[in-house]
Amino acid sequence: MPAPAAPPPADRPRRVVLDCDPGHDDAVAMLLAHGSPGVELVAVTTVAGNQTLEKVTRNALAVAEVAGIDAPVAAGCDRPLVRPRIVAPDIHGESGMDGPVLPAPRRAVDRRHAVDLIVETVLAAEPGEITLVPTGPLTNVAMAARKEPRIVPRVREVVMMGGGYHVGNRTPVAEFNVLADPEAAHVVLTEPWPVTMVGLDLTHQAVATPDVRDRVAALGTAPARFVGDLLDFYGTTYRSAQGFPHPPVHDPCAVAYVVDPEVMTTRRAPLDVELHGSLTTGMTVADLRGEEPGPDACRTQVAVTLDHARFWDLVVDALARLGDPA
Amino acid sequence: MPAPAAPPPADRPRRVVLDCDPGHDDAVAMLLAHGSPGVELVAVTTVAGNQTLEKVTRNALAVAEVAGIDAPVAAGCDRPLVRPRIVAPDIHGESGMDGPVLPAPRRAVDRRHAVDLIVETVLAAEPGEITLVPTGPLTNVAMAARKEPRIVPRVREVVMMGGGYHVGNRTPVAEFNVLADPEAAHVVLTEPWPVTMVGLDLTHQAVATPDVRDRVAALGTAPARFVGDLLDFYGTTYRSAQGFPHPPVHDPCAVAYVVDPEVMTTRRAPLDVELHGSLTTGMTVADLRGEEPGPDACRTQVAVTLDHARFWDLVVDALARLGDPA
Amino acid sequence: MPAPAAPPPADRPRRVVLDCDPGHDDAVAMLLAHGSPGVELVAVTTVAGNQTLEKVTRNALAVAEVAGIDAPVAAGCDRPLVRPRIVAPDIHGESGMDGPVLPAPRRAVDRRHAVDLIVETVLAAEPGEITLVPTGPLTNVAMAARKEPRIVPRVREVVMMGGGYHVGNRTPVAEFNVLADPEAAHVVLTEPWPVTMVGLDLTHQAVATPDVRDRVAALGTAPARFVGDLLDFYGTTYRSAQGFPHPPVHDPCAVAYVVDPEVMTTRRAPLDVELHGSLTTGMTVADLRGEEPGPDACRTQVAVTLDHARFWDLVVDALARLGDPA
Amino acid sequence: MPAPAAPPPADRPRRVVLDCDPGHDDAVAMLLAHGSPGVELVAVTTVAGNQTLEKVTRNALAVAEVAGIDAPVAAGCDRPLVRPRIVAPDIHGESGMDGPVLPAPRRAVDRRHAVDLIVETVLAAEPGEITLVPTGPLTNVAMAARKEPRIVPRVREVVMMGGGYHVGNRTPVAEFNVLADPEAAHVVLTEPWPVTMVGLDLTHQAVATPDVRDRVAALGTAPARFVGDLLDFYGTTYRSAQGFPHPPVHDPCAVAYVVDPEVMTTRRAPLDVELHGSLTTGMTVADLRGEEPGPDACRTQVAVTLDHARFWDLVVDALARLGDPA
Repeated sequence: MPAPAAPPPADRPRRVVLDCDPGHDDAVAMLLAHGSPGVELVAVTTVAGNQTLEKVTRNALAVAEVAGIDAPVAAGCDRPLVRPRIVAPDIHGESGMDGPVLPAPRRAVDRRHAVDLIVETVLAAEPGEITLVPTGPLTNVAMAARKEPRIVPRVREVVMMGGGYHVGNRTPVAEFNVLADPEAAHVVLTEPWPVTMVGLDLTHQAVATPDVRDRVAALGTAPARFVGDLLDFYGTTYRSAQGFPHPPVHDPCAVAYVVDPEVMTTRRAPLDVELHGSLTTGMTVADLRGEEPGPDACRTQVAVTLDHARFWDLVVDALARLGDPA
Repeated sequence: MPAPAAPPPADRPRRVVLDCDPGHDDAVAMLLAHGSPGVELVAVTTVAGNQTLEKVTRNALAVAEVAGIDAPVAAGCDRPLVRPRIVAPDIHGESGMDGPVLPAPRRAVDRRHAVDLIVETVLAAEPGEITLVPTGPLTNVAMAARKEPRIVPRVREVVMMGGGYHVGNRTPVAEFNVLADPEAAHVVLTEPWPVTMVGLDLTHQAVATPDVRDRVAALGTAPARFVGDLLDFYGTTYRSAQGFPHPPVHDPCAVAYVVDPEVMTTRRAPLDVELHGSLTTGMTVADLRGEEPGPDACRTQVAVTLDHARFWDLVVDALARLGDPA
Repeated sequence: MPAPAAPPPADRPRRVVLDCDPGHDDAVAMLLAHGSPGVELVAVTTVAGNQTLEKVTRNALAVAEVAGIDAPVAAGCDRPLVRPRIVAPDIHGESGMDGPVLPAPRRAVDRRHAVDLIVETVLAAEPGEITLVPTGPLTNVAMAARKEPRIVPRVREVVMMGGGYHVGNRTPVAEFNVLADPEAAHVVLTEPWPVTMVGLDLTHQAVATPDVRDRVAALGTAPARFVGDLLDFYGTTYRSAQGFPHPPVHDPCAVAYVVDPEVMTTRRAPLDVELHGSLTTGMTVADLRGEEPGPDACRTQVAVTLDHARFWDLVVDALARLGDPA
Repeated sequence: MPAPAAPPPADRPRRVVLDCDPGHDDAVAMLLAHGSPGVELVAVTTVAGNQTLEKVTRNALAVAEVAGIDAPVAAGCDRPLVRPRIVAPDIHGESGMDGPVLPAPRRAVDRRHAVDLIVETVLAAEPGEITLVPTGPLTNVAMAARKEPRIVPRVREVVMMGGGYHVGNRTPVAEFNVLADPEAAHVVLTEPWPVTMVGLDLTHQAVATPDVRDRVAALGTAPARFVGDLLDFYGTTYRSAQGFPHPPVHDPCAVAYVVDPEVMTTRRAPLDVELHGSLTTGMTVADLRGEEPGPDACRTQVAVTLDHARFWDLVVDALARLGDPA
């Protein structure tokens, strides 16, 4: 394994490419990234997942409008590497972000393909400078790694929302993002860059309890009202479709780990994705037997326990920092 | 699903066929079954698993000798239904039961094939009378169900040691007994009889701590010395091969559930075995999403939490009850 | 590989266990075996395949009645080793042998299980004396080999109708008998006994052309009328379901190879069955690259080219020899 | 299925992108494309296959040098979409094109990525104008179709060398190009563009017999000497590694079909690739049962029978037309 790239100085913000499929929780992830002082959101790229590419790209532009995000928003792959596309209207509605009234975006989508924007951004930055945060199916990131392998040793780390070592949602053992493009997830997990998998084991702890909803409402700003509307719809579908009393807000957990790694505990473990099972395709398989390996032996880790209060503090603080951009 | 067979009166002992591959922990399972007043051990059948059929059958006869078991001991299948045989000398030694000096058995193996003995025993008993307790690969039980499907609705329940819903040992996600013959496990889990899977999630709690070892030693009988010798060897291999400070004694947990269901908690869940994965073959897949299904909707359950003290009380009491049979 | 058992003297009839699922072409196979002087039909065993076990067993008894077969008829497995049962009413009708009026059998089914009858027959005979001719799914034969491995070196050879190295029927690449129980076929092809696979490559040459139909009709006996009625129905379904102008009569080809190996050419080739494909499960995979291996290197062979005239001569001669048994 | 794009006027040359991994037979394919008056070679793209990307790209530039090809040569993917890379030094040597002395190329590789060059070429041309001819693993073509789905309805057809409906080489049933990247082959075969699969069934007929070798030698030009040297080395490895008396020259067969479709017969058949088999991964599965479907029902076809003389006439004529470019 090549030596990991040297990290940039600690006082510089972490430069993040957020590859997402908004999606209610993707929207919160965008807002958290944009509103956190320790993070610079250098690009938003979109991928078919919670809904079609056209819909999630429009949603990403709308979120950028709400939050005053001026990083480029580029559209990527409209279907998985190998398998037919699946979407999640049961959770996210027909638009992929049902609930709030979406503003008409004033900005256009970037002319570059998401795969090229990822490659260009990584190659243009210093080695170890860019962190990739995928919160949808991993198609774009896998395509970028295959098209331009030189990005792999230059990426600081990949912090992905997806998978689960003990929990599934779309099947008993598979999570939606990984199930939607398991071959892409396999590519991402097996390339020699550091990967932190923030899976359902962790994100099912990130529930938006009523007090969270109240704190968001108390902010009184347009982005906060937007998040409130998102949580209302999302809470309803999570209750009806999956029986959760309060909805788990998955995607910002990955961003939160970049903002503040102390917000969760992690464990190193070899990780891969089952591609050929009849019951287990799309399952992320972690080897948790025996002692935790050291960082030289294992460059993948899984998120384990969330500090719920600290996490929501990060989100509420970021929202507060955004103010009323419009 | 057919209505479950009516259980026999509660004051009658539970009639058990123990299908095993001794094996250190299988030996303890035999002793627990034989020494428990609530259980009648009607037959012991053997199957290739921890070691070859020849070795585990000889071991079963030796255990019967030590404990004064006079139920028939019949040999079954010498390899899995479909796949090549695997054995476990790293845990159980070359003999399959290394450690104690084994007595020369005075009894001969039963002339019937284990598959036929299982079928005959079930058909000869009242419906709902016989409980099958497999603690090795499930080859014999699957063969019996395929050869004579009429046994399925007549069996009271199958209480198997094997699998795990969150834990593997031979692979990150597969347990030895199920991995050794996954097709047989699939047959057993999908036939319409009630199945309790006592997997590694539960049995890794059944560790033989030093106080357990001391309580066994204090009995001072020949069977207790035999168990002590078994635990000494087994503790050594479990420490060196799998890094356990104290060895988990898997197989008697399944017997313990028959003796006293209160010794563990269980949860109903749909269960099956992955047969086609590249990383997950032999994994038992439990669907633990959402609320626990009722008994009408789901006839399979997994063991969850062991009452460690109560479990070892059952074992020590059974050993005490055996006295010195020889 | 163990040395093959010495064949019995050439002037003794070949002793055959026919394991079948009648089925129109199975019926012709029974008649050919019974009417051929070089073959002694020592047992007929049945297995679920073309129809349920109950139906094919009744059909086997009816054929025995028509032809005066007094070998035991024993019922075997009512479903495949691992997978759900499939049947073939599109070809064989609801009864499994639609077309002729079936006589009420005067004989009862043998009390032994087919698996046990196969085992007993092989163990009771001299080594190398018994030839197994399976013409249905291979469940019974695989169960027998697994239950009693000592039969494997005692069987002279297995001549199976099933599979195909370049041709499928139920799927583009899988033949019905192998697809119905691929795990059993894998067991049969990988045990160290000699196997001749008479697959669709060969049997699609065994078409019952109008002149064949005429020759059978000209015999004027009850068995010949029975075969005529079988061919009429079978020709109709093969035309409508698979677009064949004249129906391929698969199963007697395997018997014909035992009666007269010169009736077809064969080629040695390593053989196995795909068990895990998404498009190819149940395909028999033959390695036909390079030169044909010698008999020491390879104990499996595939049938290649049929002598059509010689084959139908065998069938018509056997029918003629049967006369009017009733 | 969308209506196929209207073909360009018959008197215009067919514009071809040749995606290859030279490779001895790829080199002949390049020369055939360049020397055929009915074909305009608009781009050569390279992909890891017979050897690493670096080696096959250098080889492609050397062939361009030998033949005076001035179309851009662009490098593509250096490994398959999902699986580890395999190469074929047993056939093509350590350089990927052992045998001839390779000239030092005067031209540099194009700065564009092969995937982007394919996309740009197709989008810049008229609909139905560009034919893709992949003669290596299908990674680049699949990546292009995934990155920019709008190319699919604009491509006239894909004529690929790879696969085989009855023949394998790297495994009993899988051909090297498809086995090397089966997921990419699946993408190419299942996108809604017309595909002609020129597989081993056809290319094993394209053997370079001694008379072919003599006709090439008689040309006396530098490109002809180059081809002679290629055939000498390639014939040696094909003899030693695969037992062929004369080597099959696969890749120019695909080009030949574009130059002159009458050079071979084809048959329409549904086609896909097995991705999950244990024996059959990388096999191209053609459904050849029943009648040949019409072009509206099936947009994939397989090559069946080669006119050997006509094929080699095309190759020798193209070589003759090239003269001595240097």
